[in-house]
Amino acid sequence: MSTPTDRASSWLSAFAAALARSDAAGAAALFDADSHWRDLVAFTWNIKTTEGRDAIAAMLKATLPSAKPSSWKLDGEASEKDGVVDAWFTFETAVAWGRGHVRLKGDKAWTLLTTAQELKGFEEKKGRRRWNGAEHGVHPGRKNWLEQKTEDEATLGYSKQPYVVIIGGGQGGLALGARLKRLGVPTIIVEKHDRPGDSWRKRYKSLCLHDPVWYDHMPYLPFPDDWPVFSPKDKIGDWLESYAKIMELNCWTKTECKSAKYDPAKKEWTVEVVRDGKPVTLRPKQLVLATGQAGLPNEPKFPGMADFKGTQHHSSKHKSGESWKGKKCVVIGSNNSAHDICADLWEHGADVTMVQRSSTHVSRSESLMELWTYPLWGEDALERGISCDQADLIAASVPYRVLPDLHKPLTAEMKRRDADFYARLTKAGFLLDFGDDETGLPLKYFRRGSGYYIDVGASELICNGSIKLKAGQVERITEKGVKLADGTELPADLIIYATGYGSMNGWAELLISKEVADKVGKVWGLGSDTTKDPGPWEGEFRNMWKPTNQEALWFQGGNLHQSRHYSQFLSLQLKARMEGLPTPVYGLEPAHHKS
Amino acid sequence: MSTPTDRASSWLSAFAAALARSDAAGAAALFDADSHWRDLVAFTWNIKTTEGRDAIAAMLKATLPSAKPSSWKLDGEASEKDGVVDAWFTFETAVAWGRGHVRLKGDKAWTLLTTAQELKGFEEKKGRRRWNGAEHGVHPGRKNWLEQKTEDEATLGYSKQPYVVIIGGGQGGLALGARLKRLGVPTIIVEKHDRPGDSWRKRYKSLCLHDPVWYDHMPYLPFPDDWPVFSPKDKIGDWLESYAKIMELNCWTKTECKSAKYDPAKKEWTVEVVRDGKPVTLRPKQLVLATGQAGLPNEPKFPGMADFKGTQHHSSKHKSGESWKGKKCVVIGSNNSAHDICADLWEHGADVTMVQRSSTHVSRSESLMELWTYPLWGEDALERGISCDQADLIAASVPYRVLPDLHKPLTAEMKRRDADFYARLTKAGFLLDFGDDETGLPLKYFRRGSGYYIDVGASELICNGSIKLKAGQVERITEKGVKLADGTELPADLIIYATGYGSMNGWAELLISKEVADKVGKVWGLGSDTTKDPGPWEGEFRNMWKPTNQEALWFQGGNLHQSRHYSQFLSLQLKARMEGLPTPVYGLEPAHHKS
Repeated sequence: MSTPTDRASSWLSAFAAALARSDAAGAAALFDADSHWRDLVAFTWNIKTTEGRDAIAAMLKATLPSAKPSSWKLDGEASEKDGVVDAWFTFETAVAWGRGHVRLKGDKAWTLLTTAQELKGFEEKKGRRRWNGAEHGVHPGRKNWLEQKTEDEATLGYSKQPYVVIIGGGQGGLALGARLKRLGVPTIIVEKHDRPGDSWRKRYKSLCLHDPVWYDHMPYLPFPDDWPVFSPKDKIGDWLESYAKIMELNCWTKTECKSAKYDPAKKEWTVEVVRDGKPVTLRPKQLVLATGQAGLPNEPKFPGMADFKGTQHHSSKHKSGESWKGKKCVVIGSNNSAHDICADLWEHGADVTMVQRSSTHVSRSESLMELWTYPLWGEDALERGISCDQADLIAASVPYRVLPDLHKPLTAEMKRRDADFYARLTKAGFLLDFGDDETGLPLKYFRRGSGYYIDVGASELICNGSIKLKAGQVERITEKGVKLADGTELPADLIIYATGYGSMNGWAELLISKEVADKVGKVWGLGSDTTKDPGPWEGEFRNMWKPTNQEALWFQGGNLHQSRHYSQFLSLQLKARMEGLPTPVYGLEPAHHKS
Repeated sequence: MSTPTDRASSWLSAFAAALARSDAAGAAALFDADSHWRDLVAFTWNIKTTEGRDAIAAMLKATLPSAKPSSWKLDGEASEKDGVVDAWFTFETAVAWGRGHVRLKGDKAWTLLTTAQELKGFEEKKGRRRWNGAEHGVHPGRKNWLEQKTEDEATLGYSKQPYVVIIGGGQGGLALGARLKRLGVPTIIVEKHDRPGDSWRKRYKSLCLHDPVWYDHMPYLPFPDDWPVFSPKDKIGDWLESYAKIMELNCWTKTECKSAKYDPAKKEWTVEVVRDGKPVTLRPKQLVLATGQAGLPNEPKFPGMADFKGTQHHSSKHKSGESWKGKKCVVIGSNNSAHDICADLWEHGADVTMVQRSSTHVSRSESLMELWTYPLWGEDALERGISCDQADLIAASVPYRVLPDLHKPLTAEMKRRDADFYARLTKAGFLLDFGDDETGLPLKYFRRGSGYYIDVGASELICNGSIKLKAGQVERITEKGVKLADGTELPADLIIYATGYGSMNGWAELLISKEVADKVGKVWGLGSDTTKDPGPWEGEFRNMWKPTNQEALWFQGGNLHQSRHYSQFLSLQLKARMEGLPTPVYGLEPAHHKS
């Protein structure tokens, strides 16, 4: 009887043979009718999931001539569970070293992951390839490391132009910056605040990461093993600042990007920035917006806002509840920020009302961690030998189409274990949901990046009435507060609009033009045809970490996991372009939605 | 036929049984006549090697009642090479979790290593024990991480006293500081320079670490895997600065220690420091001098120095050869600093003469790395699964008495592979040695911390005459230069005295008193009865990382490897004292030498 490794091995041999003879149809025939090939840059120079035999054959036909894949080898033993064999393998293309994963149902592939790991001849100088540091021997007039670094910093952006400019020095910008630094791609990161990490430091006082530490490592420099499970915001801010320094990133702080314009003839951007008060013009070949998973704040336009006599602002402007003791505060919204801000205000002795306008998903932080991230990123996984990088690849090996079926049982388990909690929330009048198709928080995050609260304490305040809850729509803002559609009037000294953020292409509109923003279209979401994620199905995040319909414009970011993992593939795409490697993009989607 | 594991297992069982019945003689009988038990804090609350059955029996008799060792268990499979079985094991004492290693010749122990790894009930809060970070739930008036940290920093040293004060914020002070931070021991590190790492930055321009990166990790935060093999000085300075920040160490920079005085009745130090211009009195229970492996500069007293019209200073004051182009420079000395400074001056176009007063060992950097450190700390070792921490323990498992026999063949191999190099050096008139007993550089470092040059290029300049070499003794300094005993006069615009450093207890004399410095005695060296390391044999570094004859005074430091590894055992000794655990010290040596 054949072992899982035998079966994986014979599948991989047949696949390799079909590819070697450029037999796209033959290779496609090795896939199940229900099949998903997820490619990260190796074949498609895109982040692309191709579904079903016909689409796979078409993709292969287009990509094989330049990809020239070869050297397919199983990596370790395959295993089998519930009739599905899964196996890791390595391979190479004309220009890249690759790593991949396959799941077989019977003798056909159900899911396939192919990833470019490094570009041939442009491998990272790490491990045995690291540089020597000391130049042994003596060289009159040589510059030492500090002199060279000081000179590089003084010239880049002035007498020498960077190849890449990244707007935003949060985790997204810094992670990509670190990858590009290793690949020798001259890069400037533009950060408007005084210090890297300030985008975290400047948020509300009680904020901690909502994802656990094992999920949150930056590339190349893991957190020490005593790092807290949920990092306080200032601690993560300090970490990012140290990270930028250790990685020797050219992070221009106190620098604001004013505008960017692409010249398709010169294939070059003109990026106008103001650095510490002085205008500087940068002329990079590539522009990356790493301005946060969210776009610009959705500033609401309720009638009567101009009449309000108190203080009102978007949640992004909220710093601390400190000065609101004894005051009446109304928070419009019921997602993460709304909850955290309500709790913060209540802790400081304010009288707080949350206005819930639509149903919201709530996951208890512990449950979410235990059910979602912990099996791959946590102490148990580490004990089983699953490193963070390995966990990232395992996660990447599950196509988005398949995810809902994985998450429905997790949602059911969450409902079971937290039944009392959900009963109390509902009893308090909270409008609860678990996603359009009961897939819970992760899918809401992937599809729309909103619609949920990860409970770290505020739900209890809602259950026990400490935070007052009012469901309904805002009719207007009055001089003295908020008037709801049911006639309720909520008097307020402070109104906070926790009304979320727009799509990231809002940044493109702000910095480049409406035309470019529209050409690129909506950023984020999968096209799942669920609330706030309209179809058609795209199978991958829209416009993230991959070519967009605007040449030389890229979007980088997401949570720390995404910033870490996908920066690898974005950095390879940029490096390949800098080196003039052929990068024929397969399967660029049109912009189906403007925002 | 029994396997190595069987043999190790039966030895360990017999050993455990003898200890369990407090049978010191029975346990000692399990050792070879030629045997060495190296204990790091587990039995002796000291760093102590006990040699031979009688000494082992005496040590056990004294330590067993309090150590109460138990739970001896082999850890992994034993192996055998050249008739010696070696095996790892774990054990515990009354207060500590232990780890150890044994080498058997026949059925007797030849070497034994026992180490305390963690204190029971005071384990580091890492991995599964890490803190949560976010305090889930809401707590009116709570301080967030930043507020708490700011408050702690503002009060420690003023309204709250640290338990430990460490003088010196180089790798020694910072490594120990990081260990103590994890153990919850309130500590202030006093650093005279503006920034942690400045003790590296302020050295001569071309300096790079002489040890390779794999050997140089700090505790808890390994270098990224692209870190250069030999770190440039400013890069390691920046790393140490980031390290202090990431580890949240209370490093008081711009702070100079003026004096320290111990009150044996109160069991407390009074440490007078000036912090950024303002005097502060600290009252710690423990004082650690981490002021560098070397003591104070050996300022030479040659006749006529007052008459010299040019510039003269100790090598520790040399910054760069920049301003000496075309000038005549004489460097007195032929160790590491002398060579590096000669090369630096030559690179800047100076006319350089080195005065060699006694024979010196030279190892080529590559050869030294390949033969000495690389087999344990390097890419090959990592591929074999030997982590840095594991390598440290393997190194620790070899008693100092046994080391010369290991190093003689390495020296012979070095002579063989670098025969041409040594022939050219000798031909150039360089007085070469390989240590009193042909054990090369490592033993010179352990015994006297001097007497060698790790060649990174200057030897070639000596061979080809770019750096002039003159062997001889200095008779006097004249108005115009250096006069040697053979009558040679060397005209000089600059004289650099690369005359080395005193013993670290010179710092105790400077900061505390001559009485305390003499009571503690010479620091560093093994008592090998070789040049500059007079007997009697002590078997461990004098006064380093262990109790001294001055209560509550400790010395920490050495190279990066030693600073990393031995800080673990020093931190456990300090933590145990803070928690009031019994710490009966066995085998404290008297001070055999004052300096």
